[in-house]
Amino acid sequence: MSQRVYIFDTTLRDGEQVPGCQLTTEEKIVVAKQLELLGVDVIEAGFPVSSPGDFRSVVEISKAVQAPTICALSRAVQGDIDAAADALKYAKRGRIHTGIGSSDIHIQHKFNTTREKIIERAIDATKYARKRVEDVEFYCEDAGRADLVFLAQLVEAVIGAGATVVNIPDTTGYCLPEEYGGKIRYIFENVKNVHKATISIHCHNDLGLATANSLSGIREGARQVEVTMNGIGERAGNTSLEEVVMALQVHKELGLETGIDSTKIYPTSQLVSKMMRMPVQANKAIVGRNAFAHSSGIHQDGFLKHSLNYEIMNPQDVGVDKSDIVLTARSGRHALKHRLELLGFVFEQETLNDLYARFLEVADVKKEVNDKDLVDLAKATVAA
Amino acid sequence: MSQRVYIFDTTLRDGEQVPGCQLTTEEKIVVAKQLELLGVDVIEAGFPVSSPGDFRSVVEISKAVQAPTICALSRAVQGDIDAAADALKYAKRGRIHTGIGSSDIHIQHKFNTTREKIIERAIDATKYARKRVEDVEFYCEDAGRADLVFLAQLVEAVIGAGATVVNIPDTTGYCLPEEYGGKIRYIFENVKNVHKATISIHCHNDLGLATANSLSGIREGARQVEVTMNGIGERAGNTSLEEVVMALQVHKELGLETGIDSTKIYPTSQLVSKMMRMPVQANKAIVGRNAFAHSSGIHQDGFLKHSLNYEIMNPQDVGVDKSDIVLTARSGRHALKHRLELLGFVFEQETLNDLYARFLEVADVKKEVNDKDLVDLAKATVAA
Repeated sequence: MSQRVYIFDTTLRDGEQVPGCQLTTEEKIVVAKQLELLGVDVIEAGFPVSSPGDFRSVVEISKAVQAPTICALSRAVQGDIDAAADALKYAKRGRIHTGIGSSDIHIQHKFNTTREKIIERAIDATKYARKRVEDVEFYCEDAGRADLVFLAQLVEAVIGAGATVVNIPDTTGYCLPEEYGGKIRYIFENVKNVHKATISIHCHNDLGLATANSLSGIREGARQVEVTMNGIGERAGNTSLEEVVMALQVHKELGLETGIDSTKIYPTSQLVSKMMRMPVQANKAIVGRNAFAHSSGIHQDGFLKHSLNYEIMNPQDVGVDKSDIVLTARSGRHALKHRLELLGFVFEQETLNDLYARFLEVADVKKEVNDKDLVDLAKATVAA
Repeated sequence: MSQRVYIFDTTLRDGEQVPGCQLTTEEKIVVAKQLELLGVDVIEAGFPVSSPGDFRSVVEISKAVQAPTICALSRAVQGDIDAAADALKYAKRGRIHTGIGSSDIHIQHKFNTTREKIIERAIDATKYARKRVEDVEFYCEDAGRADLVFLAQLVEAVIGAGATVVNIPDTTGYCLPEEYGGKIRYIFENVKNVHKATISIHCHNDLGLATANSLSGIREGARQVEVTMNGIGERAGNTSLEEVVMALQVHKELGLETGIDSTKIYPTSQLVSKMMRMPVQANKAIVGRNAFAHSSGIHQDGFLKHSLNYEIMNPQDVGVDKSDIVLTARSGRHALKHRLELLGFVFEQETLNDLYARFLEVADVKKEVNDKDLVDLAKATVAA
């Protein structure tokens, strides 16, 4: 029996904060409906108190989407929580996501207060939010750099105050995987009421470790993971939905599953990239243009002999039509022969060797050799 | 005393294989000289047997670059090794990088042979290469999916045959960090002559785990890591140089250091991106356009109070001029006030509140509010 990991998508909140990614309410509804098709469990739809436009977006997404829980962000202050609750009025299942800094750096330099006062404010905010909605998630901001003993006290306090989910974010993307997993383990071992809530993880990618940190937290018992499509988000972004979901799907030995329909991943990635005007780099894992492209001779040869030689998942599993073979000066005879056959040209080995030598000359100059070039080469060979 | 981790850069080999990234020899020399400035220990300059252009590139890079070792790729066949050795003729320190498949999938479906024959061919190739150069690295292709007992036998055999470095690649980007680190640990525990060679790691990013896997291998004793600038490379690419180097630099508690001048990272990233026509996505860790940009109100406010609230390294450490504050509908009063002051406008709190309300209206429509918009808003406020 696989255990379920819940996917909390914050593309429309943490992702939408990114310079240039701002969407209109109508655009957000399009993305939210696609996330619903993808099968996410929670959509974080916005931060209602931050602007009238964001408030309206949470209202309209709550009306437009049925299956996922709709979540609204707030700081640990009553005005924020009221705005979040008001915006969630039409949600079938609404969740308020409130919280406060938990690291000493944040407590001293951002809130200018003490650990004790932070716990008081956290309890007050949680209780106040629970008066407005049944489902309250509490975020311990900058938990990645927080003192562990204090973090455990804070988690226990907010669960006691009624939090249904507690989020342990690595806000600055600082942690190494063992370290982050160790924090989650510590919480499970030291928070008495931990089983009354779901522990959630929210990692940032400043050192390129967000996916590994998330998996490390999941292994230690966290059962909600906060992600964005294409890993967009503040600075170097959030954990990529597509990476965590496919890592769990490829590594079935972990015994964990999500509700995501993985064949919707690529179309969703494309939609988010276009609407948010955030191009995905060609070498992005899972959803990049080259993620299933094989260009070197050694790889093309091996791939053509058996696709498992160089692929750990089928492109179709994530909604990509097929693997690409791209011919360059690094391509080998096998790939050239294969492509020529697809174009209708079959040559003896000796002729192919001659053609390959001329192909390399073209490829050294042209970089990528397209089908038209190949047809020209092949026709010249036939004519010779 | 920090231990040294050697940086093996394969931007010009594994990176250059990528569709669209092919460079001329002259362009490769420019990149190689920049990599020398950056401080990499080894430059993998090409795969000489693959094309005349690639052969010439290895020759010319060997002449142009002095400090790093120059490495040339080959399969475990004499013709490849001869081409590599010939191309390295002018290198001050040349290395041949030869190898063969080590997973049963590769042995059966790609080489159509047996484990025993693979070991024979590996020993023969290593010995042959050692006749041509002093420094021979052997790659155990697809080690990430290889049988561990066989992998250890293969490593022991090639070290016995004279390999100075043994590379344990996760060719298909399949491994989880604990799993990959476990393989490296197994090698250190089970290969009798392991201390006669350097163990090298070479990870691919198909599941977004290349950096974490590399760090996991380094923790278990590997002392060379194979990387590319911007993580370019076959499919979802290789491990990013910038991520591994900065993770080691930020996490000084690991007691590991590299020879990289981190302030050259950003200029090198830009050069590689432009020359290889591979845009870096805005949310790429360390080198993306937004890696040091703060846009949400909560983050901007915290950042302005104390930059450590949201930054784990200084942008200057990687050669980026300064952190950016971008104003959007998610920005708060503090960020607006700060930017207005930079533009020469100081307002009382009450006026600022009015101005902030109008700022949000503009931001909901315009997405990003630039300095000209702010000056217009501020002047209208002064005039009112």
